[in-house]
Amino acid sequence: MSASEDPTAAEQEHRFERKVPAGDDRTRLVCRDCGFVNYENPKIVVGSVATWQDRILLCRRAIEPRRGFWTLPAGYLELHEEAAAGARREAWEEARARLEIDQLLAVYSIPRISQIQLIYRAGLITPEVAAGPETLELDLFTWDAIPWDQLAFPSVHWALKDHRAVRGQAVFAPRGNPPGEDGGRSHP
Amino acid sequence: MSASEDPTAAEQEHRFERKVPAGDDRTRLVCRDCGFVNYENPKIVVGSVATWQDRILLCRRAIEPRRGFWTLPAGYLELHEEAAAGARREAWEEARARLEIDQLLAVYSIPRISQIQLIYRAGLITPEVAAGPETLELDLFTWDAIPWDQLAFPSVHWALKDHRAVRGQAVFAPRGNPPGEDGGRSHP
Repeated sequence: MSASEDPTAAEQEHRFERKVPAGDDRTRLVCRDCGFVNYENPKIVVGSVATWQDRILLCRRAIEPRRGFWTLPAGYLELHEEAAAGARREAWEEARARLEIDQLLAVYSIPRISQIQLIYRAGLITPEVAAGPETLELDLFTWDAIPWDQLAFPSVHWALKDHRAVRGQAVFAPRGNPPGEDGGRSHP
Repeated sequence: MSASEDPTAAEQEHRFERKVPAGDDRTRLVCRDCGFVNYENPKIVVGSVATWQDRILLCRRAIEPRRGFWTLPAGYLELHEEAAAGARREAWEEARARLEIDQLLAVYSIPRISQIQLIYRAGLITPEVAAGPETLELDLFTWDAIPWDQLAFPSVHWALKDHRAVRGQAVFAPRGNPPGEDGGRSHP
């Protein structure tokens, strides 16, 4: 679960300027030389709260931002990828975990960084997990053992608490941001 | 609800070539001149099945693709926008409709065009609606009056049928693509 990509990074390229293209009603990044419009769009993060029995899979980040802090297996959806398939891929890449996805746990909006997070409730098909290249270490945590003060992002807190809130419910509406929370702070 | 944006359009700009940047594991669009990596990401469409009593709001498209065909109020999420706020904005822009969003009806993945659609179940706050600039005309349809053979996209069908399927359910899990359907055809 990463908050690193800055949607305005392309501005640092001198070829682009911000202007309203003909027929549009918003400012876009337009190449000064060739007129190419680099549309910027919100990004989709897909991830999971994945459990084995009553224990939750968390990974300690080997990459910035928030290197060394604990997170859920999650990352950016790739082109031509279905949402749930992306959540399974991220669990494999970060934790060598194989998921059986149950249902959509939450949709979080992080408008400051133009991010929409789709977090699934999932079970591990086997408890065998191992750190992938973006993970320093990982573990399966009981609720009381979760390292609350070392979680990487506000939305990791949200997802863990939302997972707890719907415990035992076979059918539920996906959760959203906690009231008044926009994920804009680096740590809750 | 648009399927028009082609994620490979940037390839037509001669400045870009497809290569794997250092430290990455996938092919990206990289500028031949300056090395700028134009990361391509899936796009998020937000929309709604919005009703007044038992009638559903549909809009006839004034723009390509599928000009003249009927669609739900929906469009691309903008930067720095929350998902539900985007669905409300699109309903206003296309139909001058004011929504009270109930809950997430469906998450559809259209991998061919790298699109994730978040479609909400919503009520109209008032039945006063009017065509916005991207709409030729609009109407509130009873189920039997829906112009099934003139719907713009497969996912419009899906959303209408999913809305019907959860009728009367106060709480439900969001629906997904119909089994075996990837939205890849231009019309069902």
